[in-house]
Amino acid sequence: MSNDAALASEDELRFMADLIQRQPKGQTLLQPFYCDPRVLEWDLEVALRSGWLLAGHASRIREPGDYFVYEIAGEQLIVVRGDEGEVHALVNVCRHRGSRVCLEAEGNAKAFVCPYHAWTYARDGALRSARNMPDDFDRGRHALHRAQACEVEGLIFLYLGDGDAPDLAPASRAMAEFLGPHALASAQIAEREVGVVNANWKLVIENFLECYHCASAHPEYTRRNPVTAWHYLEDGRGESAKQLAVDWTKRVAQLGHVVGGIYQLDGDAPEGVQGFGCSRVPLDPDFISQTRDGKPVAPLMGALRVFDGGETGVQVGHTSFVLAYNDYAVLIRFTPKTPLETLYEFTWLVAGDARRGTDYEPADVAWLWRTTNDQDTTIVNANQQGVLSRWYQPGPYSEGEPYTRSFIEGYLARLRQAVEARRA
Amino acid sequence: MSNDAALASEDELRFMADLIQRQPKGQTLLQPFYCDPRVLEWDLEVALRSGWLLAGHASRIREPGDYFVYEIAGEQLIVVRGDEGEVHALVNVCRHRGSRVCLEAEGNAKAFVCPYHAWTYARDGALRSARNMPDDFDRGRHALHRAQACEVEGLIFLYLGDGDAPDLAPASRAMAEFLGPHALASAQIAEREVGVVNANWKLVIENFLECYHCASAHPEYTRRNPVTAWHYLEDGRGESAKQLAVDWTKRVAQLGHVVGGIYQLDGDAPEGVQGFGCSRVPLDPDFISQTRDGKPVAPLMGALRVFDGGETGVQVGHTSFVLAYNDYAVLIRFTPKTPLETLYEFTWLVAGDARRGTDYEPADVAWLWRTTNDQDTTIVNANQQGVLSRWYQPGPYSEGEPYTRSFIEGYLARLRQAVEARRA
Amino acid sequence: MSNDAALASEDELRFMADLIQRQPKGQTLLQPFYCDPRVLEWDLEVALRSGWLLAGHASRIREPGDYFVYEIAGEQLIVVRGDEGEVHALVNVCRHRGSRVCLEAEGNAKAFVCPYHAWTYARDGALRSARNMPDDFDRGRHALHRAQACEVEGLIFLYLGDGDAPDLAPASRAMAEFLGPHALASAQIAEREVGVVNANWKLVIENFLECYHCASAHPEYTRRNPVTAWHYLEDGRGESAKQLAVDWTKRVAQLGHVVGGIYQLDGDAPEGVQGFGCSRVPLDPDFISQTRDGKPVAPLMGALRVFDGGETGVQVGHTSFVLAYNDYAVLIRFTPKTPLETLYEFTWLVAGDARRGTDYEPADVAWLWRTTNDQDTTIVNANQQGVLSRWYQPGPYSEGEPYTRSFIEGYLARLRQAVEARRA
Repeated sequence: MSNDAALASEDELRFMADLIQRQPKGQTLLQPFYCDPRVLEWDLEVALRSGWLLAGHASRIREPGDYFVYEIAGEQLIVVRGDEGEVHALVNVCRHRGSRVCLEAEGNAKAFVCPYHAWTYARDGALRSARNMPDDFDRGRHALHRAQACEVEGLIFLYLGDGDAPDLAPASRAMAEFLGPHALASAQIAEREVGVVNANWKLVIENFLECYHCASAHPEYTRRNPVTAWHYLEDGRGESAKQLAVDWTKRVAQLGHVVGGIYQLDGDAPEGVQGFGCSRVPLDPDFISQTRDGKPVAPLMGALRVFDGGETGVQVGHTSFVLAYNDYAVLIRFTPKTPLETLYEFTWLVAGDARRGTDYEPADVAWLWRTTNDQDTTIVNANQQGVLSRWYQPGPYSEGEPYTRSFIEGYLARLRQAVEARRA
Repeated sequence: MSNDAALASEDELRFMADLIQRQPKGQTLLQPFYCDPRVLEWDLEVALRSGWLLAGHASRIREPGDYFVYEIAGEQLIVVRGDEGEVHALVNVCRHRGSRVCLEAEGNAKAFVCPYHAWTYARDGALRSARNMPDDFDRGRHALHRAQACEVEGLIFLYLGDGDAPDLAPASRAMAEFLGPHALASAQIAEREVGVVNANWKLVIENFLECYHCASAHPEYTRRNPVTAWHYLEDGRGESAKQLAVDWTKRVAQLGHVVGGIYQLDGDAPEGVQGFGCSRVPLDPDFISQTRDGKPVAPLMGALRVFDGGETGVQVGHTSFVLAYNDYAVLIRFTPKTPLETLYEFTWLVAGDARRGTDYEPADVAWLWRTTNDQDTTIVNANQQGVLSRWYQPGPYSEGEPYTRSFIEGYLARLRQAVEARRA
Repeated sequence: MSNDAALASEDELRFMADLIQRQPKGQTLLQPFYCDPRVLEWDLEVALRSGWLLAGHASRIREPGDYFVYEIAGEQLIVVRGDEGEVHALVNVCRHRGSRVCLEAEGNAKAFVCPYHAWTYARDGALRSARNMPDDFDRGRHALHRAQACEVEGLIFLYLGDGDAPDLAPASRAMAEFLGPHALASAQIAEREVGVVNANWKLVIENFLECYHCASAHPEYTRRNPVTAWHYLEDGRGESAKQLAVDWTKRVAQLGHVVGGIYQLDGDAPEGVQGFGCSRVPLDPDFISQTRDGKPVAPLMGALRVFDGGETGVQVGHTSFVLAYNDYAVLIRFTPKTPLETLYEFTWLVAGDARRGTDYEPADVAWLWRTTNDQDTTIVNANQQGVLSRWYQPGPYSEGEPYTRSFIEGYLARLRQAVEARRA
C-alpha cells in the first residue's frame, strides 16, 4: 500500500527469506511470524490483500449514502451505498493533507466533507470541490483512493489489493446454493459484537480452523456439534457422529434441502480464483438449532419451510465465515489490528420480518457464539503469551488440526512466492 | 544533545538523505516525517534547538528561587529565578547518577537538592555540595547542564542549542513595539491550560499557521476574525475584510496605536537572527475583543487608554505565539512530546491589577481560544490518523496555506543543510 | 533462550562491543545500558541466567502439586512441589502450539492440563497425554522445558541457564550458618507485596546495594541502622557506629550467636561458584528489632532464645536478598520485566507457630521495609527519568557506593567476556 514500502526492502527481504527458510515443516510457525511488525506488513500484502474480505451485512447500508467504516491494521475504508445502489469502498484519507474524511463509524452522507478544509468527495470518492486550488489543479487526480467492493447474498466483500481481484464467481455460485435458502440479503441484524483478541491474527485463525480444542475448551459448542467436535475424540463418539451425518444427509436431501459440501481452499483453489468452502452438517439431534435449549430462537429464515436441524458453514479465504442455522445466521470476520491484536466482528442475522422482543431476543440468538468466542478469546490470548516466550519453539500439529495446518502451509507458500518474486 | 547521537549516524544519514530527496516539492510531507522517531531526533537538533522557544510568563517566577519545569520531548528544564533576578534554565538531571533533581512541577527553592543522594545545586546550577567524593573530584565540572534563557516583555524564552543562540534583538525590538502597550511584564495569569494533541508537532504547527480551515472548523473564530479567516472564502467576503483592515488601520493609527506588521520568518530572516513576525489587524466591528459577546472580559491592559478592537499577533519561530487583545493576551506554545504527541500550553493574561471574580472571570477570558483549540485538537488528531495510513501520500497545498507551506519548505531546507553538513 | 537470538547477532555484537568500549571507568553506565531492549537480551543471558535466583519461600508449595508462577522478563516458570517433595521449575509454554499451560498465579495441580488442547503434563513436566498425534510422535521429546530448582533454608532458588549451574554449596553453607538459627524453612508468610518500579533492573539493584542515599531518602531506616546508614556521614556518626558494631559483636558472640560476615561476590567469588554475602550487624540500641517502636512485632524465630538486636543480611548474586531480625525476616527479590520496568517482591516471614492477629500483625511486620521500598520506588523512578535525558551522561560514583560500583564493574566484565566469546 505504502509508497515507502520499497525503502527497507533489502533488509526485510533477507529477514523474511531467512525466516521462511528456517521454518520447520508441519509445525507451528517460528516466533517472529506471530509478533514481528515486519511480518505483519508482508501479511497485509500477501495474505490479506490477495483475496476478498467480508466487510459486513448489506442491511447496514440499505439506502444511497448509508455507510459504515471498515477497519484493518490501522486502515479505514468507508463502505458506502452509491447513488445507483452500488457499493463503494473509499480509503478514509483526504487527498489534501491526509486527514480522516469521515469521523463517524456509520451514518448517511450526501457527500463526504473533510472536517479539516472541507474538501468534498462524492459517494464514489470523486473530488467534487476544493477551494483555493491553483489553476493547474486536477480534481480528477485527487479522488479518494478506492478498494474493490461487491455484494453476494447480502454479504459485502472488499478486495484491497492493487491488481486484479481473484475471481469470486465460483464462490458466489456456491454461496447462492448454500446460503440462498436463508435469504440473507433480506435478513436483519439481530445483534453485533466487535472486540479485540490480544494475539496475532494467524493465531486467531489457527484457532478458528480447528475443533481439536472443542472438547476441552467449548463444552456448550461440543454438546451441540457432534460432527465437527467429536471427530478426534478417542472414545468412539467420532464414529457415531459420522453415522449421524450420513443418516441426516440422506433424510434432509429428501426434503430438497442442500447437503454435502464444496471445498476449494488452499491447494485446491485454482490460481486467480477466490478460495472458499461450503458445507452442511447436522447438529446433535437434541438441538433443532444452535441454541441454549435446542429450540429455535427466531422464525425460519428465507425460503426454508421446515426445520432440518442443520448447520450451513461457509468460508471465504481464511478470515471470513458464515454459519447459518434454520432460524439465524452469524457472520464472523477477523482482521489484524496490530501484530499482537486482532479485531473480531460477529453479526447475527434473523429473518427480515421477525419482530425483536416478540419473535426473537438478541441475547438468545447470540448466546452460543458469544459464549464460544469468549472462550476462544481467553485461549488465544494465552496462546500468544506463551508464543512470546524465549523458550517457545514450533510444535507439531496433531491429526485433529488439518485445516489449521493447511492454512499455515498455504500461508508459507504464498509468502515464499512473494519473497522470491520480489527478489527476482 | 546525546553523546550517543553519533552512533547510528551512518544509517540515519542515509535514511534522512533518502527521505529528503524523495520529498515532492510544494506538498505535504512524506509519512515518515510525521511519525518516525528518527525524524524527531533530527527535528530536535535542527528545528527545535536552533531557535528561541517560549517557555512561559515571567509572573510564574517573580521571586528569587521561584521555578517551574519546562518539558520538551521527554526532557525537563528547571526555569528558575536567580539570586539577582536573572533567569536560569537548568537541565533536570543530576550529574551524579542521573536522577531528576526536582520532582515538583513548580515551587520555590533555595537550592536544588537531589532527592537521591542530596547533591545540592545553586539556583544557577552550580554544584554546592556532594558528600564522600574523592579528593580529585572537581565540583566545577559537575554543575547542572544549562540552556540559555532570557526575558522579553514578560515572556521567558529558552535556547536549547549547543552553540551561539540566534540574535533575538530584532525580535525583541519588534515585540517591544507591538506588545509594549499591553505591559505583559506586569500582567497576571488568568488561566492556563496544558494538554496533548495525539499528533506529530509539525502537523500541529501546520494547523496553527493557516486559516484555510477556519471557515469549516472554527465558526466562533471565523465570526470574529474577518481579516484572518475570510481571506480565501470565494464569496466576496475576503475583499470586504481587506477593506475593513485598511479603514481600521487608518483610524487606529490616528489614536497613536501600533498598526501594520513586520515579518522576518523563513526565507526573510537573515542567517543567525531569530525569525519572528508581528502584526496588528482588526476584529469584526461587532467585537471589541475576542470574546463570546464581543464585549471586553477584563480591564484595558497596560498603557492602553481606549479600546480599538484590534488583535496583535506575535510569532517567534514556529512554535511560540502571542495574541493580544485590548483586555487580554494569550501565550501559546507547542512542544513535541513523542513522535505522535505534542504538548500545547495556553496562558491567558490580564492586567496585573485586575481582580479575579470582580474584574474578570477566567472562563470568559479563555473562552474563544479554548473553544478553538479544542476544535483544532480534534482536527489534528484526525489528520495524524489519516497520515499513518498506508494509502496516505503527500497532497498539494492550496493558496490558502502560504505560511504552512513556507514552514514546511523552511523546515526541509534546514534539514537538508544539516544532513549535508553532517555528511561532509 | 531463543532459537532466534542468533539472527541479529552481527549487528548486536557490534552494538554491544562499541557500547562496552565507550563506557567510562568508575562511572555510572552509558544511557543505552539502562533502556535499550538489546541490552536487556544480553542481561538475561549474561547477568540473569548465569546465577541462582531467589524464587520464593518454600511454604508457598508445601504439598505435592502446590505451585506458584515465577515471572522474569515476560517469561513464566511454574515452581511446583513434585510427587516426592522435590521442587520443579517448568517453563509455562505448551510444547504443542505454545499456549500458557497454567493460567493461575498459584494453586495445587495433580497435573498441568493445557487449557487449549488438553495436552497433559506431570508435575515434573513430562508429557503424559496428547490426543490424535501421529504414530511417530515421541512424548519423551515434548516435555515442558525446565529450569533447575533447589531449596536452601526454606528458600527456593532457580537457575535459568542452559549449562551447568554455579556451585551453590558455599553459599548454602553460609546460609545454614547465618540463617539457620531463624529456621526459615518452618516459618510462615506474614505478608507479601509485589509491585513494579518503572526503571531498568540495574538502576534498582544499584539503589539497593548502597546506603549513600539512606540519610537523605530513608529517615526511618537510617534511624534504626547506624552501621549501614551512618557509614559515610561526615559528622562523626560513622565512627560511633563502627564502635557500636565492635561492642555488639563482642557481646553477642558470648551469647553463642553468629557474628561477623562472609563476602564472596564480584571479584571475590571463584569461577563457577555462586557469589554471595552474609553478615550480622547491630541495629541502633534503641531498637530491638527493625520496627516502628523498636519493640518486637512477633515471637522469636526458630532456635533463637534471646533477642540480640541484630540484623542478619544475606545476598545471593545481585538480585536476591534476605534480611533477618530476631522476630521476622524479609525475602527481597528483583526481576526485570521490560527494559524500563522491574518487578519487586517482598515476603515477610515470622515463626511458623505464631498466630496472626494475636502474636503478630502483618502491617507491623512489614512496616519498615514497605516504607523503605516505597521511598526507593519513587527515587528509582526519578533516576530512570533523568537517565533517559539526552543530557544524561555517566557520573562518578562516590566513596559511599562501593558495592554499587563493584556490581557495575562485575556486570561489565561479564558482558565484555560474553561479547568476546561470541565473537571468537
